[in-house]
Amino acid sequence: MDLRKIIDDIASGNISPEEAEKLIQNSRYEDLGYAKIDHDRKMRSGNAEVVFCQGKPDEYLTGIFTSILDTSGEVLGTRATERQYELVKKTIPDIVYNPVSRILKYEKQKEKIGNVVVCTGGTSDIPVAEEAAETAEFMGSYVERIYDVGVAGIHRLLSKKELFDKANVIVAIAGMEGALASVVCGLVRVPVIAVPTSVGYGASFGGLAALLGMLNSCSNGVSVVNIDNGYGAGYIANRINRMAERGM
Amino acid sequence: MDLRKIIDDIASGNISPEEAEKLIQNSRYEDLGYAKIDHDRKMRSGNAEVVFCQGKPDEYLTGIFTSILDTSGEVLGTRATERQYELVKKTIPDIVYNPVSRILKYEKQKEKIGNVVVCTGGTSDIPVAEEAAETAEFMGSYVERIYDVGVAGIHRLLSKKELFDKANVIVAIAGMEGALASVVCGLVRVPVIAVPTSVGYGASFGGLAALLGMLNSCSNGVSVVNIDNGYGAGYIANRINRMAERGM
Amino acid sequence: MDLRKIIDDIASGNISPEEAEKLIQNSRYEDLGYAKIDHDRKMRSGNAEVVFCQGKPDEYLTGIFTSILDTSGEVLGTRATERQYELVKKTIPDIVYNPVSRILKYEKQKEKIGNVVVCTGGTSDIPVAEEAAETAEFMGSYVERIYDVGVAGIHRLLSKKELFDKANVIVAIAGMEGALASVVCGLVRVPVIAVPTSVGYGASFGGLAALLGMLNSCSNGVSVVNIDNGYGAGYIANRINRMAERGM
Amino acid sequence: MDLRKIIDDIASGNISPEEAEKLIQNSRYEDLGYAKIDHDRKMRSGNAEVVFCQGKPDEYLTGIFTSILDTSGEVLGTRATERQYELVKKTIPDIVYNPVSRILKYEKQKEKIGNVVVCTGGTSDIPVAEEAAETAEFMGSYVERIYDVGVAGIHRLLSKKELFDKANVIVAIAGMEGALASVVCGLVRVPVIAVPTSVGYGASFGGLAALLGMLNSCSNGVSVVNIDNGYGAGYIANRINRMAERGM
Amino acid sequence: MDLRKIIDDIASGNISPEEAEKLIQNSRYEDLGYAKIDHDRKMRSGNAEVVFCQGKPDEYLTGIFTSILDTSGEVLGTRATERQYELVKKTIPDIVYNPVSRILKYEKQKEKIGNVVVCTGGTSDIPVAEEAAETAEFMGSYVERIYDVGVAGIHRLLSKKELFDKANVIVAIAGMEGALASVVCGLVRVPVIAVPTSVGYGASFGGLAALLGMLNSCSNGVSVVNIDNGYGAGYIANRINRMAERGM
Amino acid sequence: MDLRKIIDDIASGNISPEEAEKLIQNSRYEDLGYAKIDHDRKMRSGNAEVVFCQGKPDEYLTGIFTSILDTSGEVLGTRATERQYELVKKTIPDIVYNPVSRILKYEKQKEKIGNVVVCTGGTSDIPVAEEAAETAEFMGSYVERIYDVGVAGIHRLLSKKELFDKANVIVAIAGMEGALASVVCGLVRVPVIAVPTSVGYGASFGGLAALLGMLNSCSNGVSVVNIDNGYGAGYIANRINRMAERGM
Amino acid sequence: MDLRKIIDDIASGNISPEEAEKLIQNSRYEDLGYAKIDHDRKMRSGNAEVVFCQGKPDEYLTGIFTSILDTSGEVLGTRATERQYELVKKTIPDIVYNPVSRILKYEKQKEKIGNVVVCTGGTSDIPVAEEAAETAEFMGSYVERIYDVGVAGIHRLLSKKELFDKANVIVAIAGMEGALASVVCGLVRVPVIAVPTSVGYGASFGGLAALLGMLNSCSNGVSVVNIDNGYGAGYIANRINRMAERGM
Amino acid sequence: MDLRKIIDDIASGNISPEEAEKLIQNSRYEDLGYAKIDHDRKMRSGNAEVVFCQGKPDEYLTGIFTSILDTSGEVLGTRATERQYELVKKTIPDIVYNPVSRILKYEKQKEKIGNVVVCTGGTSDIPVAEEAAETAEFMGSYVERIYDVGVAGIHRLLSKKELFDKANVIVAIAGMEGALASVVCGLVRVPVIAVPTSVGYGASFGGLAALLGMLNSCSNGVSVVNIDNGYGAGYIANRINRMAERGM
Repeated sequence: MDLRKIIDDIASGNISPEEAEKLIQNSRYEDLGYAKIDHDRKMRSGNAEVVFCQGKPDEYLTGIFTSILDTSGEVLGTRATERQYELVKKTIPDIVYNPVSRILKYEKQKEKIGNVVVCTGGTSDIPVAEEAAETAEFMGSYVERIYDVGVAGIHRLLSKKELFDKANVIVAIAGMEGALASVVCGLVRVPVIAVPTSVGYGASFGGLAALLGMLNSCSNGVSVVNIDNGYGAGYIANRINRMAERGM
Repeated sequence: MDLRKIIDDIASGNISPEEAEKLIQNSRYEDLGYAKIDHDRKMRSGNAEVVFCQGKPDEYLTGIFTSILDTSGEVLGTRATERQYELVKKTIPDIVYNPVSRILKYEKQKEKIGNVVVCTGGTSDIPVAEEAAETAEFMGSYVERIYDVGVAGIHRLLSKKELFDKANVIVAIAGMEGALASVVCGLVRVPVIAVPTSVGYGASFGGLAALLGMLNSCSNGVSVVNIDNGYGAGYIANRINRMAERGM
Repeated sequence: MDLRKIIDDIASGNISPEEAEKLIQNSRYEDLGYAKIDHDRKMRSGNAEVVFCQGKPDEYLTGIFTSILDTSGEVLGTRATERQYELVKKTIPDIVYNPVSRILKYEKQKEKIGNVVVCTGGTSDIPVAEEAAETAEFMGSYVERIYDVGVAGIHRLLSKKELFDKANVIVAIAGMEGALASVVCGLVRVPVIAVPTSVGYGASFGGLAALLGMLNSCSNGVSVVNIDNGYGAGYIANRINRMAERGM
Repeated sequence: MDLRKIIDDIASGNISPEEAEKLIQNSRYEDLGYAKIDHDRKMRSGNAEVVFCQGKPDEYLTGIFTSILDTSGEVLGTRATERQYELVKKTIPDIVYNPVSRILKYEKQKEKIGNVVVCTGGTSDIPVAEEAAETAEFMGSYVERIYDVGVAGIHRLLSKKELFDKANVIVAIAGMEGALASVVCGLVRVPVIAVPTSVGYGASFGGLAALLGMLNSCSNGVSVVNIDNGYGAGYIANRINRMAERGM
Repeated sequence: MDLRKIIDDIASGNISPEEAEKLIQNSRYEDLGYAKIDHDRKMRSGNAEVVFCQGKPDEYLTGIFTSILDTSGEVLGTRATERQYELVKKTIPDIVYNPVSRILKYEKQKEKIGNVVVCTGGTSDIPVAEEAAETAEFMGSYVERIYDVGVAGIHRLLSKKELFDKANVIVAIAGMEGALASVVCGLVRVPVIAVPTSVGYGASFGGLAALLGMLNSCSNGVSVVNIDNGYGAGYIANRINRMAERGM
Repeated sequence: MDLRKIIDDIASGNISPEEAEKLIQNSRYEDLGYAKIDHDRKMRSGNAEVVFCQGKPDEYLTGIFTSILDTSGEVLGTRATERQYELVKKTIPDIVYNPVSRILKYEKQKEKIGNVVVCTGGTSDIPVAEEAAETAEFMGSYVERIYDVGVAGIHRLLSKKELFDKANVIVAIAGMEGALASVVCGLVRVPVIAVPTSVGYGASFGGLAALLGMLNSCSNGVSVVNIDNGYGAGYIANRINRMAERGM
Repeated sequence: MDLRKIIDDIASGNISPEEAEKLIQNSRYEDLGYAKIDHDRKMRSGNAEVVFCQGKPDEYLTGIFTSILDTSGEVLGTRATERQYELVKKTIPDIVYNPVSRILKYEKQKEKIGNVVVCTGGTSDIPVAEEAAETAEFMGSYVERIYDVGVAGIHRLLSKKELFDKANVIVAIAGMEGALASVVCGLVRVPVIAVPTSVGYGASFGGLAALLGMLNSCSNGVSVVNIDNGYGAGYIANRINRMAERGM
Repeated sequence: MDLRKIIDDIASGNISPEEAEKLIQNSRYEDLGYAKIDHDRKMRSGNAEVVFCQGKPDEYLTGIFTSILDTSGEVLGTRATERQYELVKKTIPDIVYNPVSRILKYEKQKEKIGNVVVCTGGTSDIPVAEEAAETAEFMGSYVERIYDVGVAGIHRLLSKKELFDKANVIVAIAGMEGALASVVCGLVRVPVIAVPTSVGYGASFGGLAALLGMLNSCSNGVSVVNIDNGYGAGYIANRINRMAERGM
């Protein structure tokens, strides 16, 4: 909040009390009425606000994208539909959409650093994996994808050991029993972010089985995000990856 | 029920209708009032009734053990306490008790055939594993124990591959996320009976996490029994093992 | 993994280290990028990989079917839709589809051995039952179907006792309270694989009631697979049936 | 509430308005401060209020027993402990306690009419069964007990068919998967009151499995009460039994 | 099963053993292959088998209706769709359909006896109530409907007290918190069959809140059937009503 | 119930007993057959009955709206669809519909008093918030809206502290983890009504996560209504607001 | 936070920037190391911090009581044990303990204003009710207790209508199905705070049934707090009661 | 596994095939029979195996501690009891025990680097926090503790902003609704590891409410471990902290 600096300015008369008050309260988000865009977030967290498109009313969507793009020079939306893409494209023609990851973004050219491994148990987990991978890439991380290495045929996973060893952080994505996270984590020394997916049926209860499995992992080093939350995992992985590369 | 044979006997006058009726209804269990010992079970299933000791009132316990021992020449009780052992020993002095498996039994000398592998994820799963192993042994199976080979250090499991390859059937016992069953089953061609255990804490919810994990196994060939049900798994493993050995 | 044999070949100079390494790592699955077809599975488990069609993207589906068919000479897909059938048929014209079991397969002529009984509580359980039955048949088992013998009219079940007595293994499929498994298992001496189905409403909670009922069966010998998992039950039943016939 | 009769009395001047008001409001329960004994219940429901002893503070217990005994000439308490028995006995020396059913009662001599069958799946269900049976007997029903006839050995149940056929109503009590209710109900034409018990372990989840099984019974005619609620079942069974005997 | 009579016939030579065997096994259900129509049910339970139409494949539906109609002279189907009605009407032109109760039936003229009250908490519970009411009527009971008397305005319920007092049995149907059953049951002396409905939203969890509420009713005399199971409640109510009228 | 006054009238002969009885029973609701409009509610609770439109059959809808409008001069419906609006408009042309709040109403001009704050965590919670706000306004409260102030950027919330300080009562609406209620409640001294919403995915389980979070709030003063129940919260907030303004 | 005033002081030179900063950050809680006593809470919320004694380590307990007592002149602890009472008494000899409500307090003489009704369904709910009542009294409210008026005998509740009508707010406390809240709320025009209790057994699941019932109440005006949370309900009731009395 | 190097050695004749095989399989864990100590773990993960003491049989405990201590020169046990401490002390006299964190350890002197913040919502969360903190310290991290900064008095948390800003990673520990993680994470740019605790009652369901809250956090950057899993959080925090310090 850098309270001290503003206090100094007031004391030195650089700014009037009225200005000071407005400054503290107004400079930190843009009030669109229906939404309060958190422009301060980039300063706090190192990344601009991201748009969770699912269920966002059409009336608000383009305004939110535009507000962030204007401030940050780029913008990332998750869980967008084809229809939402068409809508936003009218205002931001260069916006890009990937129907697999359902990511809608306008991205500045940037170097990708470090090494994030994103792996999945099966091919049906790929949409969640792509959401994670593209998020981390958008935020500046290099990403290695290792898909369909579920534990039912463990030689597939073991044959990729070398790739896992190069990672700063691993995102392990699986549905059904979610055992991938435990096995991968047992093989490496870096943090593993586990993403349970809703892939499965019957007693998978929409991803609950994988979620519980990952939370109860017998391997040290696994932490878990919400079911199908590829975005969240990609976000955390990028944070850790960059810290590892830059020594914070 | 061999209805036809009794019908023939009636028709031929070998037995009277009254005798026939009684024969059908009375010969199949012993009515102790508080319990109906199912002596027909050995004929139907190949194994005598087993005593589930947990919560059995003292008044009934010895009577049930004695009734089965008299008919079958041996008797197996599960989930017995030290106190129950002391009680039954007064009447059946040669009864044997194992405080780890909590099995209370009087067993005839018998040859152990075939090969049942009982493996666990950790050392805390051993009581359930011993219940499974001793049950299968009591019923005539040879049992190989492979303990503490959880997936957090998968090289321990892989180093025992040869032992797994010799099994007719495998009992895989694990708590926490229960991933052991999936990994083991992916390595072999025989049926895997999975036993979730209540080992764990927090979101393991008394074994629910392991149970759901095993039910959703991505490996073909896993079927599951109740949480901590070592007895049930040993019983089924013995059935399959004997069929494999004897060609049914 | 037959590590020893390859080691011997290296030591004797039969193969170069480079060849050896590739051999170990490459001969075991085919990497299609989006999928890693586990060709080693047939060697490990006795059966080729099976395609779980549900939710598989169109782009990948035909490739996966073709890869398996080329290697194994036959291929089995489960939970296929009519639309997926039309798609794969373009490339594999002789592929066959059953809208009840939703199985999509190309099958080699083969002898069916042994005896697997597949029974259901009601007529609504038949789709799951057919998935189980066709799976076991595809893998070489003879299957006897006994449908609509739920416990509400137990004479129907008892009248089929003779058929049950011929089985090497029984698949018991039921929704609602799932009591069929307990009653059937109490009548026979072979393993019973129980399949809870999502048939029911209200407090059946999508099959949860049947699942819990079967897991808590008071009959020895019942093991359980996931809700509606006919394929898994058919797979296990075939394994046990063949072991019983061939003495492993 | 017989509002009309009191209105007539007011109109005819038989009672004053003040009296009328008090009459309506005061004659229907006794206010002990900590409890309001519902003396009107016997008129409304045909049975006096019953004391649920579990967790009742010592200070209140004897007062409640005495209040009911004084009004009704008899009193029934459920879920009483040995210690509570000792306590109440000081004031009501002839009170009787059964440690199996945990029923504490003082009962008038009375004829038992009709026929209520109370059956259980196992011997561990007997405490709940005795609570049901003694409740129905206290309220004037004749009770037939059929214990340990679980579906794992269905011949035991079938051999008692004749006894079941004599019942006006059946109370079916079982833990584990609770299949007893469905099978019994399929054999008879009278209502079946199902009582799930907490007997079981693991995925029985304290009786939830049996509860769900009974609610989803495929047999017409099963209705269910709370887990271990022997009292409730005995109460309903008595109601139905008496209606059947007396034509209401 | 009337085993004795057939045994006598065999003994007396009235029938040959072969005939006897067939008689016992064949006379009790009709095997349509996909279904085993339980014609014995009417003898056992007093009512013919009822068709649960939901999810029944078109191929089987008409066959099942016809088989029952031919044997019983009438037929009742529940949870039928408009489309199923059109289908069955082709073969049974006089079949009648009610889109509110979703009951599809052909009914013989019959006297309605006794008194069953069917009441609901709200207007949205009416479809379930009509299923209950029409079922009881089909089976010969007179039914009184009291709708929209939920406890939020308890004077509506109290004003109908006289109607409740005439009932032999009450079916209380409510969603949300399901308190109707407790309040009604506290007012009467006859059994109350409670039906939780899926009416509600959010934490009603599809009727779970009402189900738990009814199972935990503080009023004696409430027993519960599955969520939305109007049919089951009507069936039981008819049984009890007829017993009350006829003295069994 | 004002029983005394009617009693006095009877005693004084002002009204006949027959009239008295009818008076007591009839004057309090209007029986439309399918519904019993609770006209007494306004007297009891201060507000006329409100129509929960969701799932209400077309046949009943207009009748219910008309009955309330005729008696109260205004009418409020919640969870109405566009289609229901079109239907009711045919009979009540001046009825007004808001597609965001889904409220359908005819409202008398009235002064809005006091101060109710309705705040949300995100923009997706706005439909629930509008239902709450419009309900409170309809009932006569002044409402201040503060949207999109979720705890992920807590400065947005803190910057509105002054607005919160003016409230008599606060409605805090949030999905996901529902932390908004705790944080807001910790800042103020007035009651906070928390509304969990179904906004979220995966382990939000349709609002369960937010519901549990709000029920377990570490801040004193939070009470909770059902998931997405904006109406209920608005109703309570209005009650409290008016009490605060008027001193009851 | 009164940011403006402090800013003015800085600008006018009344306080130095260093002082300002400390002032903002330090004046608001006392840091005991293991705890941060929130002395600002009384200013924010109108009530001092309350001590939740359950599980509080002995080492911290007395320190926390003393810190609050010194600042506020009185102190309230909830869920205290007899043992904790003995401990704190050593330092604060005049502290008072009630073993029913488990409240441990030192209270200043104060006038009790307004009218809070606390009612319960049964006698077993009294401990929770006393926690609510004593909390509201401690905070200055007059409390009327109406115990044991559960809906199974609804005349008891109706006979107290007059007392309910005098309340500014009602706390309705019940276990089992929790129907009390709905019925009471339907009778009055003031807010009802519902407290589910863990009284019950079996499918009450520790109060879950009552909790869901109350959340799904069909009566407008019910809001809910956590299971057994008498303190929270008393706290809110006091807030509302005082607002009603004082017009905020 | 460094397969290539061993292959080269074999090819060059440096080691015999027999030696090679043994080398691969034997060098990686110590088989104690009841346990397989994973000595390879330090190489793989950077940390030696840690002993989860809870429920470990006395017979095994000392052996496991000794085996690890001998190999690693230090050893860490979690969830140890006082009694287990006494037991192990007999063999390892210098072992140290902390009854708050329940950690039992023998630790080498080592430098603590970086900055891990461990914060809690309340004082009852301290035992879990100490488990996390001591684990991270044992593994070489510097730890800053910030306890009792729950969101009910958010100024306490905000006043510590500076300390949070210095962290490389934050462990946020809270029970009840678990909102601490969301609020903290919204203020910083480093990863937050959230630990739900079982602190709470009623609808906290043993920590489930906090777990779900944290999984559904609206703040980017939160990942979650099992309920009460302080150890797991400390382990991951140390991994991330060291990566940040050393640039991996």
